[in-house]
Parts: sequence; C-alpha cells; structure tokens
Amino acid sequence: MKHRAIIHIQSLLLVLLAFGMGSAAFVSFLMSDTYETTQSLTACAIGTLAIGCLGYQLTKRKAGEIDFSTNTRDGFATVAIAWLIATIFGSIPFITTANMRFMDAIFETASGLTTTGATVITNDLITRNGATLAEIFAKTSSHIPENLPVPYGILFWRSLLHWLGGVGIVFFVLLILPLLKVGKSMQLYNAEVPGLKTDSGQITPRIGTSVMMVTCVYIILTTAATTIYKLGGMTLFDAICHAFATISTGGFSTKQASFGFFQSPLLQWAATLFMFVSACNFILIIKAIFRGEFRFHKDEEFRFFLGMATISTIFITILVMASCPNSIHCTGGTGTLEKHWESYLRTVAFQVTSLISTTGFVTSDYELWNNPAALLLLFAMMFPCGCGGSTAGGIKCSRIIVVIKHLINEIKHCVYPRTIPDVRLSGERIEQSLVAKTLAFVLLYIAIFLAVAFLLTLTEYRQPNMKLTTENGELIVQATPSEMNIKTALGASIACLSNAGPGLGKVGPTGNFGWMRPTSKLLLTLAMIAGRLELYTLLVILLPAFWRK
Amino acid sequence: MKHRAIIHIQSLLLVLLAFGMGSAAFVSFLMSDTYETTQSLTACAIGTLAIGCLGYQLTKRKAGEIDFSTNTRDGFATVAIAWLIATIFGSIPFITTANMRFMDAIFETASGLTTTGATVITNDLITRNGATLAEIFAKTSSHIPENLPVPYGILFWRSLLHWLGGVGIVFFVLLILPLLKVGKSMQLYNAEVPGLKTDSGQITPRIGTSVMMVTCVYIILTTAATTIYKLGGMTLFDAICHAFATISTGGFSTKQASFGFFQSPLLQWAATLFMFVSACNFILIIKAIFRGEFRFHKDEEFRFFLGMATISTIFITILVMASCPNSIHCTGGTGTLEKHWESYLRTVAFQVTSLISTTGFVTSDYELWNNPAALLLLFAMMFPCGCGGSTAGGIKCSRIIVVIKHLINEIKHCVYPRTIPDVRLSGERIEQSLVAKTLAFVLLYIAIFLAVAFLLTLTEYRQPNMKLTTENGELIVQATPSEMNIKTALGASIACLSNAGPGLGKVGPTGNFGWMRPTSKLLLTLAMIAGRLELYTLLVILLPAFWRK
Repeated sequence: MKHRAIIHIQSLLLVLLAFGMGSAAFVSFLMSDTYETTQSLTACAIGTLAIGCLGYQLTKRKAGEIDFSTNTRDGFATVAIAWLIATIFGSIPFITTANMRFMDAIFETASGLTTTGATVITNDLITRNGATLAEIFAKTSSHIPENLPVPYGILFWRSLLHWLGGVGIVFFVLLILPLLKVGKSMQLYNAEVPGLKTDSGQITPRIGTSVMMVTCVYIILTTAATTIYKLGGMTLFDAICHAFATISTGGFSTKQASFGFFQSPLLQWAATLFMFVSACNFILIIKAIFRGEFRFHKDEEFRFFLGMATISTIFITILVMASCPNSIHCTGGTGTLEKHWESYLRTVAFQVTSLISTTGFVTSDYELWNNPAALLLLFAMMFPCGCGGSTAGGIKCSRIIVVIKHLINEIKHCVYPRTIPDVRLSGERIEQSLVAKTLAFVLLYIAIFLAVAFLLTLTEYRQPNMKLTTENGELIVQATPSEMNIKTALGASIACLSNAGPGLGKVGPTGNFGWMRPTSKLLLTLAMIAGRLELYTLLVILLPAFWRK
Repeated sequence: MKHRAIIHIQSLLLVLLAFGMGSAAFVSFLMSDTYETTQSLTACAIGTLAIGCLGYQLTKRKAGEIDFSTNTRDGFATVAIAWLIATIFGSIPFITTANMRFMDAIFETASGLTTTGATVITNDLITRNGATLAEIFAKTSSHIPENLPVPYGILFWRSLLHWLGGVGIVFFVLLILPLLKVGKSMQLYNAEVPGLKTDSGQITPRIGTSVMMVTCVYIILTTAATTIYKLGGMTLFDAICHAFATISTGGFSTKQASFGFFQSPLLQWAATLFMFVSACNFILIIKAIFRGEFRFHKDEEFRFFLGMATISTIFITILVMASCPNSIHCTGGTGTLEKHWESYLRTVAFQVTSLISTTGFVTSDYELWNNPAALLLLFAMMFPCGCGGSTAGGIKCSRIIVVIKHLINEIKHCVYPRTIPDVRLSGERIEQSLVAKTLAFVLLYIAIFLAVAFLLTLTEYRQPNMKLTTENGELIVQATPSEMNIKTALGASIACLSNAGPGLGKVGPTGNFGWMRPTSKLLLTLAMIAGRLELYTLLVILLPAFWRK
C-alpha cells in the first residue's frame, strides 16, 4: 500500500479543513462572538493548517500518485481514511470552543460531513466540565433563546461541514466511485460527467473541467438559495447557514425550532424546492445549466423521484387532514397551524421532501400527526431517498426501480418460464450481473440497518428502574421501559444510515441524539459514514483480508 | 386451462375435509358437547361431503390429469385455488357451530390451515347475533373458564386444520413445488425425497412411496408428542390437540393461557424439543427413521438453525436475567415465575423455539421482559424461521445462508475483483442464477411485509378520539392514538406472513386479532396464504397475464 501517497492526500484535506475553520473564525469575529471563541477557532485553524502542512512537506518527496482505477485497495483506503480523518479533525472546534465531550463532537462532525444533520446540540447536553451547554453558553455570551446554545462561529462551522461534505460526496460519487468500480452497482445511474467523455466516446482525463462544473453548479445553487432565503426574511447569517444545509441536503439549523422557526410560507416552499433539486442527479443539473439540455423528463430515476414525492405528499396530506381535524403541529410560531389546505399541504410537502432528500429540516413533528399510516410511509421513504449522483443519502431511487422491475419480472417468469429477463432503466438495458449486485446492495443495506438498530438496543441497555408497590396486599413490580425502545432504535438506525437526520420516537423530529451513550454515538457515526460511502467503501476496510499484503 | 381437472382435484379435497369435520363431530360427541353442537358439526360434514361427491361425479368424465411439470399454469391454479377452497369450506363449522362472523371464521380457518396459529377467538369476540362469544357459550354449555369459549368439537376442528394444513404443506413443498419449478428458488434445500430418486440417479414416479413416508413420519411424530404430553399430565383431548398444533408448527391451544397453562417443566421442555424437530427438514427425519442415516450434522441449514436457536436462547436468557431481576412473566399459573436459571432458560428457550419454528405457542409475554434488545431479536428471528421442507413458515434458513454468503462474497469482491463468486450450501455449489433468485425472494418477502403493514395502518384507520381540555386558559387538544400503531402493524404483518402467530403490541403473545376490522382480517388471511405458498404461488394468480389465454 502506498502509505506516503495516502498521507499526502490526507494532508491536503487538512489544509482545506483549516481554511474552513479559518472562515468560521472570521464569521465568529464578524458576528461579535466573544473574544475567546474567535481566538479558539483561529487556534484550531492554525493548528490544523500546521499539521496539514507538516504532513504535506514530509510526504512530498516520493509520494507518487494513486491511480484509483488500477490500485483499488489504495483508493478504498484513501477515501475511507479521508472521511475518518476529516471527522476527527473537524470535531476539534466543537471540543475546544463549545466545550463538548469527545464523542459528542465526533458525532456532530460526522453528522455534518455526511450531510446527515442529526444533532446532539441542545440546551441539556452535558459538556466536558459537567455543566449543560446552555449554562456554559449563558456565562460567556448573550444567549439568544431561539438559537442553539453555541456561538455563531460554531453554528457556521456546523453548516460549513455540511457544505464541504456535500461537495465532497458529489466528487466521490461522480468522479472517484466509477474509478473504484465499487461492486459496479454505482454504474446504475447516469454517472457520466460531461467533460469526462468526449464525443468520440473516449474517456479523457479532463477531471479539472468536471470538478469545475460540479463546483460551479454547487455554488450557483447555494447562492440562489442564500439570496431567496435572505429576500424571504432571514438574516444573512441564517440565510447562508440554511442554504449550506439545504443544498448539501444536510439539515443543521441555527434555530432550536429548525426550519419551523421561519413561519413564512414563501421560505418554506422555497426550501422545499431547493431540497428537492439538491436530491436530483447533479449530471442532469449540469447538463441543464451548461448545455441547455433539459432532460429531466427523460430520466426514469428523476420521474420516479418526482412521482414518489408528489404522490406521497398528496396522500399524506389527505391522511393528515383527516387525523388532525383542527390544527397541525408546527415547531415554530405558536406551535400549531389552523386548518387550511395550504398550510397542511405546505407542512406535509416540506416534511416529505425533507426526508426523501435526506435533508432533515423540520417544520412539524410528524409523530404528532396521529396517523400511523403517514408515519409508516415516511419511515419507509427514508430507505429509497434521493437520486444517485446527488448529495442525498439512502439506497437511491435508481436501485429501487431496478429491484421493483426485477421482482415483477421474477413473478412473470413463473408463468412464462421462457421469457428472457430484461430490466431497463431510462431505456437502457441493465445487465443481469448488475441487477444481482443491486439486489445484494439493498439487502446489505437492510441487514446493516437491522444490525445497527439491534446494537443500539444493547449499547443503550439500562437496568429497568423498578418500582415496587402493593395493591390489595399484592406486590406489584412496575418497570419503567428503556428509553431506547424498538421504534427509537429503528428510527435512529435509518436516520443515520440514510443520512436523513430525524428518525422516530426519542430521536424524532423534535428529539435529538444527545441523550445517548458514547458507544451508541460511535456506532451511529460509523453508520453515517458507511451509508454515505455506499456501504462497501467502509466495509471493505473492516475486512481482515483487506490489510493483508 | 383444464377446468374440469382442477375442479376434480378440489372435489377430492372437499371429501377429505368432510372426513375431518366428521371426526370433529365424533370428538364433539365423545366430549359431551351439547347435542346442537354435535348435530351442527355432523351437518357440516355431510354437506361438505355431498358437495365434494357431486363435484367429483360431475367432473369424473374427461377430467384428464394435470401434469404439474409441463402444465405450470394449471399447477399454480390448482394449488392456489385448493388453499382458497379449503379456507372457505373449513370456515363453515366456525360459522354454523360457534356463531362466528364470516371474516372471523375465514381468518381462523386460514390461520389453522397455514399453521399460523393467529386467533380471533376470545371471550370478547362479537358473534353474528351481537353477543360476545363467551355469552353465547355460557348459555349453551358448561363454560370451563380456562378453556377458549367454544365447544370441544370446534377446538378439535381448529387443531385438526393445523394438522391437515401441515401435512398438506409438506406434500406441497417436497412433491409439488419441485415440479412447478417456482422460480427455482425452492431447489435450495435438500428436496430430494428418498424414493423419488433411485440409486442410478434417475427420477422415478414412485410418488406413492414418498407420500407414505412423509405421512408415516408425520404420524410418528404426532403420536410421540401426544404420548409424552399425556404422560406429562395433559388430558387426552388436550394432548392430541396440542400435539397436532406442535407437529404442524401451528400454535392453536385449547387454553386461554396457551401452552403456559401447563406449568410442568417437563411438558414445556418436551414441547420445545418437538417444535424444534418439526421445523427441521423432513427429508433429514425421513432418512434418519427409514434409512438409519443420521445426517443432521452434515446439513448446513440444520446447523445454522440449531446454532441460531441455541445462541439466541442463551443470549436472550442473559438479557432477561438482567432486565427481569425478580421474576419473569408467565401466562399460566400465578402469572410470574420466581428467578431461577432453569425457569428463565426454559421460558426463553420455549419462546425462541416457538417463534423460529413459527409455532406460536406462548408461555410468557415477551413484551413484558422490559428488554428492547430481546424483543428486537425475537422480531428479527421471525423472518428467517425454520428449515426448508418442513411445516415452518418464514424465509427459511437456507435462503438466509445463501444471502449472507453472497453478501460476504460481494464485499470481498471489492478488494479482489478477480475472484469468481462461489456460494456453497452443505458443500454444493449454488448457481449464480439461483443466488439471484434467492436474493429476489428475500426482497420480495420484505416488500410484502412492509406493504401489508402499511395497508393495515390504512384499513384500521380510525378518526382519533379528540379530547379538548383547557389548562391555564389554554386549549389543549389530546388525541388517543390509533390502536394500530406502527409496532402492532409490523408485528401483525410478519406474524401472518411468516405463519408464526403472535406478533408485537396489540397482537403480541397475549393479544389476539379479534379486534381488527374485516378488511384487515382479509388482508392478513391473504398474507398467511401467500407466506405459506412461498409467495410466488399466490402472486402469480394475481397477475392479469396469468389468466390470459
């Protein structure tokens, strides 16, 4: 394995992170955080920069280059280690500046970088010196009640983690994965970056152009979102942070009430639109912007995604209209919205789009919709999620389409045993071996989902709090149920694996992950990274065989 | 399609059912049920016999024969229609004799024939004339409190449905499915009935021998179970009924407290053993009995099944020892068992074996073990269940082994892209096409499981019962949650699809299915039959293409 080359790349990553921390320090200065906060963030930036530069210099000589297409093992190691390194170094500001405990900081950073948006930051989070986050923050700063109890610099750093993670994942999926040929199952969706392929069909190494195009689109979308959020009434700081979280399909908010703090219908509809667009294949957007080819309707995955979003929104709206006859819950404002079709449709559309794009913004607690059917549907939609080649997590629509078509074929095959199986995606025939790999991916996804949920019930095991009471002379033993019940465990597992953010039960839309034990947080951190790297990339480096010479 | 031949076979089935009803009438007479009960059961038997004989006579001429191996469509239609016909006619005694409503009777019959063991019979079940089952029964008969509120004849008929369904499914899986070549995925397990294959490897149509062998083993096991249950202290009636339910992995009991009524450790351990044996591949048992070849240890599926049962029993026992520090719940006796390793181990072993063999007997309510980890593990084990070629339902261990091996291969394949995939079961290589079909089967299973759960939340939708209260002058809207919450829906779905019986929540070990609406019962009836017929057999006849000429 080319250790020097791998360290070389990680050093470059650290330099990039250092610049991010620097900008967080700058924002902290602009937003008048306390002097200590700004100083601490600056120190983080300088320290990370120093380590990065040192690593860079030490490995500069004889670093060599990693050819991802021929040297698969090095490729896997580079990518997986990069995410782990970024998570560890990215957590430093949370520890030094916000006084958070190590695993809390790691969880928050991983949640940011993987664009999950699951958070541990609440008023009640215990910090390193035993006080809650709110107590610490109240001492050092003017506490704004609706804001999360951390300085502006940290809020910005969280959102920036989203943004960097988002662009990182697009590069990873569109540029690196095709080279690694991960189980070939990546090739399902249109991963053909214009510029990588010339008209003669030859692949040319014009990666520079592709990087430029992807970055451009990403910046254009972010700018558009920021502008509209600002015009819709957010402060510039909130607009930027929420734009970062929207376009990366992350979901960290600067407010306790998440996006529900902003009660403007315009803002909520705009966010719904941007979340949806961010979960579409970037290639389609790049083609639309740079070539003027508006091919969305020809892409089967896009049609499926749009159909799923639309149908489930309408369906759930009808269900919620029935089960919430007077008003619907909302996280901001007065706490409820009067019954009106627009406010119901808006709330449901926002929440559906937020989950299937794996953003995880919240305007209303779907647990309070009194509707098990709607809840189960939302839960089920956290598996397929967005389109391939986007910042969304989950199994991806293209894989779901292939699985559905294959299953229908299989049933038909019983009646007409002589038919030749033929699964097509956007008109192109999918090879049988690729279909088999897709089925395996989906099953692996489900297996990991169940395994993580099960492990969570173990790591969160608590001796039940027994109460002994007597009634009519009979001894009655009452046990308070564990906080990690099945629903919460399944919800937390899929929320992290699919990089969605909110789950069910105690980690639902208005819950958080702060109450969990460090081991649970570590487990969920790994689940987030595994889900983000399309499972295999993280799993292979856990194989003993991978490290053998 | 050969309509005459299909009706001909169904007529024979009705004659068989009529003899079953006749024996139920005879038992009813022996056990001194009221005169009306015996009379009504006899009338059912005569009526069914008449219809069967009529159909037989009418289609005798030019009936022709159905060759299952060449005429697949007729084969599918015959099998699927047979289960539907048996369900409809089998429900008549419940309607005429026990006054049950139509869908309740259908559900109970399907639950019996598919060896599910999910029941609607409770004291509170509303009968056709509006009174509860208990009220009706108290008027007509001396009500024994611990017995279910139906006459002995009906209790026997329920158990007999299990037994007939059980032997039916073994014939279906071992003799008919290989001919239908259902998605070939049946060939995974050792479905080679001795006698069907001679030493030269040629398949001879000595089906008579095979039927004889299977029936013999089935009767031997039932007799053994009856004897031991009788010696253990049951009445002969209870011993026979529970033996029928054990060997068919059904799970109907004659007692309100299910098997927990019998607090004898000997009986519970014996039942655990018999449930386990009944979920093993019949071919292995046939070989052991008729050829003296004791090959259990060489069968990978058996080893996996044994390992899963043993490890999970030990693991859950440890968990329960921690979470129930004083006593463990039991359905019979005083309601609790004092802490003692044997009683804990026995209770857990019984419950684990009951679920993975899809029997569904209950001695303790696992919902009351205060242990989400144990609950989730039990829930997860309702998917794989027993071995192929047995009366157990579920996905079957052999398929799970293939899926696990394939997934490990896939991960390894990322590191060593040049390895040739090789999945073996008991040393024999499984073709890649068969592996793909197995993956598809498991995914289809999960998809149907989710679809049924989702539909249940819809069919059981109830306008939430709103309570308006004022607190400190503020209006508070409280809604009682729907009875069909997510947990219950998921539990009911897998309990029926896997033919296990008890699920989670309101359909948990001490719950029942009586409270559901008729549409939900119809849905679950179809799920039970679909699960029993390995999905495809029922699904194909739902295809419009199937009925086209």
